[in-house]
Amino acid sequence: MILFFHMLLLSHLFTKTSKEAVADAGSVNAELLVRAGFIAKTMAGVYSFLPLGLKVLRNIERIVREEMDRIGAQELLLSALSPREYWETTGRWDPKVFDALFHVPGAGEQEYGLNPTHEEIIVPVARQYVRSYRDLPFGAYQIQTKFRNELRAKSGILRGREFLMKDLYSFHTDQEDLERYYAVVQDAYAAIFRRLGLAEKTYLTYASGGSFSKYSHEYQVILPNGEDTVFVSVEAEEKGMRIAVNREIYEPGKTACPVTTGTTFREERASEAANIFMLGTKFSAPFGLQYATPEGQMKDVIMGCYGIGVSRLMGIIAEAFADDAGLVWPKAVAPAVAHILPIAKSKEDPAFTTAMHCAKHLEDAGVPCIVDDRLDPSAGSRLADADLMGLPFRIVVSPKTLADDKVEVKERAGGAVTLCGTTKLLALVSG
Amino acid sequence: MILFFHMLLLSHLFTKTSKEAVADAGSVNAELLVRAGFIAKTMAGVYSFLPLGLKVLRNIERIVREEMDRIGAQELLLSALSPREYWETTGRWDPKVFDALFHVPGAGEQEYGLNPTHEEIIVPVARQYVRSYRDLPFGAYQIQTKFRNELRAKSGILRGREFLMKDLYSFHTDQEDLERYYAVVQDAYAAIFRRLGLAEKTYLTYASGGSFSKYSHEYQVILPNGEDTVFVSVEAEEKGMRIAVNREIYEPGKTACPVTTGTTFREERASEAANIFMLGTKFSAPFGLQYATPEGQMKDVIMGCYGIGVSRLMGIIAEAFADDAGLVWPKAVAPAVAHILPIAKSKEDPAFTTAMHCAKHLEDAGVPCIVDDRLDPSAGSRLADADLMGLPFRIVVSPKTLADDKVEVKERAGGAVTLCGTTKLLALVSG
Repeated sequence: MILFFHMLLLSHLFTKTSKEAVADAGSVNAELLVRAGFIAKTMAGVYSFLPLGLKVLRNIERIVREEMDRIGAQELLLSALSPREYWETTGRWDPKVFDALFHVPGAGEQEYGLNPTHEEIIVPVARQYVRSYRDLPFGAYQIQTKFRNELRAKSGILRGREFLMKDLYSFHTDQEDLERYYAVVQDAYAAIFRRLGLAEKTYLTYASGGSFSKYSHEYQVILPNGEDTVFVSVEAEEKGMRIAVNREIYEPGKTACPVTTGTTFREERASEAANIFMLGTKFSAPFGLQYATPEGQMKDVIMGCYGIGVSRLMGIIAEAFADDAGLVWPKAVAPAVAHILPIAKSKEDPAFTTAMHCAKHLEDAGVPCIVDDRLDPSAGSRLADADLMGLPFRIVVSPKTLADDKVEVKERAGGAVTLCGTTKLLALVSG
Repeated sequence: MILFFHMLLLSHLFTKTSKEAVADAGSVNAELLVRAGFIAKTMAGVYSFLPLGLKVLRNIERIVREEMDRIGAQELLLSALSPREYWETTGRWDPKVFDALFHVPGAGEQEYGLNPTHEEIIVPVARQYVRSYRDLPFGAYQIQTKFRNELRAKSGILRGREFLMKDLYSFHTDQEDLERYYAVVQDAYAAIFRRLGLAEKTYLTYASGGSFSKYSHEYQVILPNGEDTVFVSVEAEEKGMRIAVNREIYEPGKTACPVTTGTTFREERASEAANIFMLGTKFSAPFGLQYATPEGQMKDVIMGCYGIGVSRLMGIIAEAFADDAGLVWPKAVAPAVAHILPIAKSKEDPAFTTAMHCAKHLEDAGVPCIVDDRLDPSAGSRLADADLMGLPFRIVVSPKTLADDKVEVKERAGGAVTLCGTTKLLALVSG
């Protein structure tokens, strides 16, 4: 039971793939992720992340965290429970105003909120520290489980009652500084979507802005089964930009692209991966979050908020790249880079020992591997498992490949197959 | 606002220390951690972790995770919400049986549990994958926020309504294999407490075991304000072991130390940091979690569970080492290793530039630093802040130290002061 390898052996992993379709999954992402053993459904809209799924989630988290840290945002972890009074301060305790909030009865006639978003929690924290203009601007973010009281949960991990989010809040003296920071966050988000392999499919989508700005912005990823409809600006695409407007602000024949002023749009199905808002004083004013100007005048702090759906991105990436054989993970988020599969009858076979040797060689060079060290299942079902699990490279070591002193490397995306000497393996999978 | 340094500048950190005692904290750990800006109280028993506090929490998490990974336990992330049916299956939906569980009403007349522990969630997951004795044993763990419906929350982050825990569950064919694994986990826990700097203060404490074993075990850390009372075996201590029995199984004059059979005990106040149980079939039987023996017979899976309070450990470490001047973090969990404090009037002063130079030198060598780059507060209040925040080394760079081409290094624990050339700094703080 005690393993000193870091490489993951399939014989050791307690989860397994499943060949049958999952009857109740009801969505492409959940269907595939459950069958591949990445997630388990606890109930509608609530999933657990199993070892392979957690690795994907952590990889997405890491990319998001690095880009937040790069723009100087400070990570914290706000509470999931909150006092009813905070929500009453902003008027959002009332389910007619805000129906997403779970109201949790506690011992001693108390009642708590179970937070779907954290403006009501971070503003009282900021109020403890912000005194003057010298304390501004700053950005604070967290990566945390959120809860939403959904009547009907759907779309697997795309829209759940419980999900992992990154939420960043920024605090400023004035609108101009908020707008500067808003652009900095947009650059960070572009970097995140690029690193996740989603840049080509992600459209900066203009949505209604509320009282403090003309627009808010969504990051919509084009997906055949996406739950949203967006209108992609054709003129923007012709200029190499990915810009769309969302359904709620689109009027056929009247709407112009806010960037190009073009009026030609193409309707697409998409899934929202992130959204950013200028909040103005919407939350600072009710909590009395103010700062003193250099002249000693007290003014409301100006805020922005910037969400990104971390577990939702896992579902979006799963749907965006999957094919008929299963999942296809981009390298940056895959649970490991190489899926090593010996075709062997015993652990003493040269195919098995060579496979373990290749895995150690790659792991030592920092390339995470999964080794299918199982002897029992048929080669066919193990190859199908590799396709279903979707690691970027499948490396088959068999008596046939070894006869030529080679291993067979197949790229999961595209399917290109190379026969390769073991000394060239690292260069090939690191390329 | 955009920082390309990784080092933390106090002028950039949005939190601040506070000189005043926190009126409502009501506990040594919360008092200090709130004053030092490590945590913020959302409400009784519910805290947010601010940037410095989150670094401590992540360091504790990392140590726990590494020791779990080392024994081959597989990390996952179970859901926080659960269906009522799961709790009804084990009889724990009834508040008379189990009053810690929050019952959360949801849209559409649904009702969920908000999990304080995860036996009810992991057993149905395991049931999807366990078929035969070949699928056993395995251990699966998570580090996750838990919720408890406490009537009265107390002791700061030691006993809250919301807290971070590591919970490991193990699955076995028989009692003998469970006992083997239980000993492996005890070794891992010993390594965790040693790495956290708590080994000298932590007693393996025998508690009542329930139906499946004579004893369960707690890891009790001796603390003057601890909420528990334990009875330390004097004979065990004389043999170099730290063994205690808890109050519920202690009968004066009758109880013998389960390890040494000695009957001399010393009463101590302590705080429970971890507990481990043999569960037997208590949870596997009601869910029908069974495996086929080699002979094809179906048997209930035998389970163990192993908790450790991650946020609670942060409070315990805070209380265990603090002194009158503030927090004293062991190096392994401190938010950074060196607190660098230039005494300077401007950012062009040699003391300031030398301090930044030292910080860069240490950071490049992998020693995390916090630099107090603030020019406004008095030197006295900045030195007091350094003591309150409690990093292992305080490095003061002043015109006086620079006159000798030195910096002043003070160890927070013990208070030893060294004057040291900048080229010897790395060796000194890495020692």
